[in-house]
Amino acid sequence: MQLRTLIVAILAASATLAWSGEPIQPIAAVKVKNPAMVELGKKLYFDPRLSKSGFISCNSCHNLSMGGTDNLKTSIGDHWNQGPINAPTVLNSSMNLAQFWDGRAKDLKAQAGGPIANPGEMAFTHELAVSVLNSMPAYKAEFKKVFKKDTATIDMVTDAIAAFEETLVTPNSRFDKWLKGDKKALSKDEQAGYKLFKDSGCTACHYGPAVGGSSFQKMGLVAAYDTKNKAQGVAGLTGQDADRMKFKVPTLRNVEMTYPYFHDGEAATLEQAVDTMGRLQLGRTFSPEEVGKIVAFLKTLTGKQPDFKLPILPPSSNDTPQPKPFG
Amino acid sequence: MQLRTLIVAILAASATLAWSGEPIQPIAAVKVKNPAMVELGKKLYFDPRLSKSGFISCNSCHNLSMGGTDNLKTSIGDHWNQGPINAPTVLNSSMNLAQFWDGRAKDLKAQAGGPIANPGEMAFTHELAVSVLNSMPAYKAEFKKVFKKDTATIDMVTDAIAAFEETLVTPNSRFDKWLKGDKKALSKDEQAGYKLFKDSGCTACHYGPAVGGSSFQKMGLVAAYDTKNKAQGVAGLTGQDADRMKFKVPTLRNVEMTYPYFHDGEAATLEQAVDTMGRLQLGRTFSPEEVGKIVAFLKTLTGKQPDFKLPILPPSSNDTPQPKPFG
Repeated sequence: MQLRTLIVAILAASATLAWSGEPIQPIAAVKVKNPAMVELGKKLYFDPRLSKSGFISCNSCHNLSMGGTDNLKTSIGDHWNQGPINAPTVLNSSMNLAQFWDGRAKDLKAQAGGPIANPGEMAFTHELAVSVLNSMPAYKAEFKKVFKKDTATIDMVTDAIAAFEETLVTPNSRFDKWLKGDKKALSKDEQAGYKLFKDSGCTACHYGPAVGGSSFQKMGLVAAYDTKNKAQGVAGLTGQDADRMKFKVPTLRNVEMTYPYFHDGEAATLEQAVDTMGRLQLGRTFSPEEVGKIVAFLKTLTGKQPDFKLPILPPSSNDTPQPKPFG
Repeated sequence: MQLRTLIVAILAASATLAWSGEPIQPIAAVKVKNPAMVELGKKLYFDPRLSKSGFISCNSCHNLSMGGTDNLKTSIGDHWNQGPINAPTVLNSSMNLAQFWDGRAKDLKAQAGGPIANPGEMAFTHELAVSVLNSMPAYKAEFKKVFKKDTATIDMVTDAIAAFEETLVTPNSRFDKWLKGDKKALSKDEQAGYKLFKDSGCTACHYGPAVGGSSFQKMGLVAAYDTKNKAQGVAGLTGQDADRMKFKVPTLRNVEMTYPYFHDGEAATLEQAVDTMGRLQLGRTFSPEEVGKIVAFLKTLTGKQPDFKLPILPPSSNDTPQPKPFG
């Protein structure tokens, strides 16, 4: 028995060692702490009645059928407002050091309330959103079950949405299988792409389980980034010149699905994004062949996509405030 | 054995008899003929890349989380265009004698192409929609599997969407259980509401498994319907005065979820809708108590809602035509 224990310990240690020293670690499957809260949060995430128009839900711009994004340069908001910045993926967003491109929300809970009340996005108020929810007996019962309170608050709403979003991790990508020791999981080109990705310094910013999301970096480090987009990144919060064009490094998990790229969405393809990053961040012009290999590697980062049933939402009651799509 | 056969035959006959003579019949569970086509159609139904903007899918206005409607008076289309008419539910729509409020599409396949190319809805063209789909290897492979052709056509697209929509039936409502003999499935008030619904003549139009969808009728038969909505119903197609305000009778299945009501969406509540129908179609003013009973009955028509996993869509390729949300 002692020998067996030893062997188990050695196997466990070597399993860990499989990716020790690698800048990227596999994504762990999520452990759901509070299933009832997650179910409630899922409904809220899909519910367009959290918007003034009754038309826009979290899922409108962070579409879980499409990599947790809208695949648009910048998003469409209330009255077809053109958003100022590319919608980041919600997938694996729990691993980000902060939320939004400029990190102005410290976590998913703090983020979730933002779009609801943003006049250019869902254009509602927290008060109205909560009164909509409290007007529906089925929602009230679900809030009561989860939070043991008779009345929902915006705090509970954002807690539940964040709890759902925390489940949106994407383990089991081919790259993760390779990291864990399945050497056949990647082709030679994909492995060469990963080596090039590391050797060129991409992993200085794109590291960790999310392959990004762990730091703020200046967009246009070696050469300036030319864009018509007005976003100034962290400087918009601090007012400091040193923070101009500093954005949260985006995750590269599922990057094949989260096009177009960059905070302005101006890179339509992965090839374009890799080329731009090489020149502007690393001062390196990748050959088309090198770009191809890195892109091949990046496409191995697509993991298990959201896997749940379409939620069915409780119907509004006679007391539910009416949506105002054209008001 | 012969006796047993006889008993089975008697039981089968009496099971049929349970609702013989009733104007409403239970909804039968759907038999999926071509699961691969249904799966493809489900993806297409949820894919906003069938719209010019890349933002609007079939599910935007016929939201399967919300009774197959958008729960708005009239729908939001491309560039926030205000639609001319209330979006009818897609649930059980295969049972309709024709599609759209004016019946201008003979079936679901004929309907499915309409919104894609309608400038005020998805604002795309069939040619572009098809070229978007043919640009994605995963979609091409799925079309090939289903249709045995190398290239998708709009005909295949609408076939697949219609095949998916045909699965969207909602059996097992409490009312259907009651029809089938479970006498405890309805309360006394609900049963009284059904009796009143029949005795008052509602079933002259709202009959059959879909409780509607089987005929065109004039909105405002006894007294004119006062509305600012410009829709003229069937007259818009025939140009005949006799067809003015003639609309397809909507299904009342899941009516608790498909608010607001009428072709103009002006009745916010079931109580209001029942009151208006009584006065305008039957020349009868229901008392608040009678309205309450009919509404109680109508709420028993909510059946099993769509029950499937959120589809994951194939990513666009470098060759996919870009969406034009703000063009």
